[in-house]
Amino acid sequence: MVNAIRLLGIDPGLRRTGWGMIEAAGNRLSFVASGTVTSDNKKSLAERLVQLHDGLSAIVAQYAPDEAAVEHTFVNKDAGATLKLGQARGIALLVPSLAGLAVAEYAPNLVKKTVVGTGHAEKEQIRAMVKVLMPRATFNSDDAADALAIAICHAQHRASGAARLARQGAA
Amino acid sequence: MVNAIRLLGIDPGLRRTGWGMIEAAGNRLSFVASGTVTSDNKKSLAERLVQLHDGLSAIVAQYAPDEAAVEHTFVNKDAGATLKLGQARGIALLVPSLAGLAVAEYAPNLVKKTVVGTGHAEKEQIRAMVKVLMPRATFNSDDAADALAIAICHAQHRASGAARLARQGAA
Repeated sequence: MVNAIRLLGIDPGLRRTGWGMIEAAGNRLSFVASGTVTSDNKKSLAERLVQLHDGLSAIVAQYAPDEAAVEHTFVNKDAGATLKLGQARGIALLVPSLAGLAVAEYAPNLVKKTVVGTGHAEKEQIRAMVKVLMPRATFNSDDAADALAIAICHAQHRASGAARLARQGAA
Repeated sequence: MVNAIRLLGIDPGLRRTGWGMIEAAGNRLSFVASGTVTSDNKKSLAERLVQLHDGLSAIVAQYAPDEAAVEHTFVNKDAGATLKLGQARGIALLVPSLAGLAVAEYAPNLVKKTVVGTGHAEKEQIRAMVKVLMPRATFNSDDAADALAIAICHAQHRASGAARLARQGAA
């Protein structure tokens, strides 16, 4: 029997951060839980980051994952949006690392290629393939579905160079 | 006698985050401490963010500031650098807010204008003016001097609209 390992995927965003928890036992994947942590845009930026921190910390405490993976979102042309995303992403990387977990990073096209088979998949294709790979999976948002896809990507690549490079912060 | 309030200024950066602690009693400013929290670039990004978190948390615990202020760095043209700065900035905003402090944000040109009198001051002018305003101030890096300037800026503007706007995340 292969030991199961529990993996947390995170799709960071200031307004909505998706998370997905799966178990991998060899090649077998199974769904554990998923959801979305939101922040209140009427609060200050610092208070919103605390909301993301508290939400993700509660998930890590409740589900006790062994490893985590965060999407390495490519930056768009809006520098203000990039800075905002970076701030949310800082919290998504911090929280599992504070709990002692290794945190891998994956580029979105690798996540799509791993889950759908092509680096240019639409959100609907990702949702559909997450359901094919884990029929019991449920998700309340695209962000939660993306987070499950990131966890699946990590399950496939965690022993390979793609993940190791990311862990060294080279991505 | 005016009650003294203790203010923490933070100049965030992934490699080096400067911090400066001052006390303001009415118009009188006095230096408390300053320094630089560094992260090890051989570690993973997540581990580096934990180093910044732990360093800043220790400072907040040791000096017990009443309020904090973080520079709202304007974004440059390199999106990768902007994302990196955003991640460090997320930690700089999070840590004082986790401790229950209000965290204001100020644009660099307001910080310079407040401390030096012009929005286009050089680093040397900032260091010199910090010493004029607080003769006992010491700093081990430009980042620590900048952080003291941010704290001074907050002392001047904390009761005004500039700070309130920032607290609502509008900056």
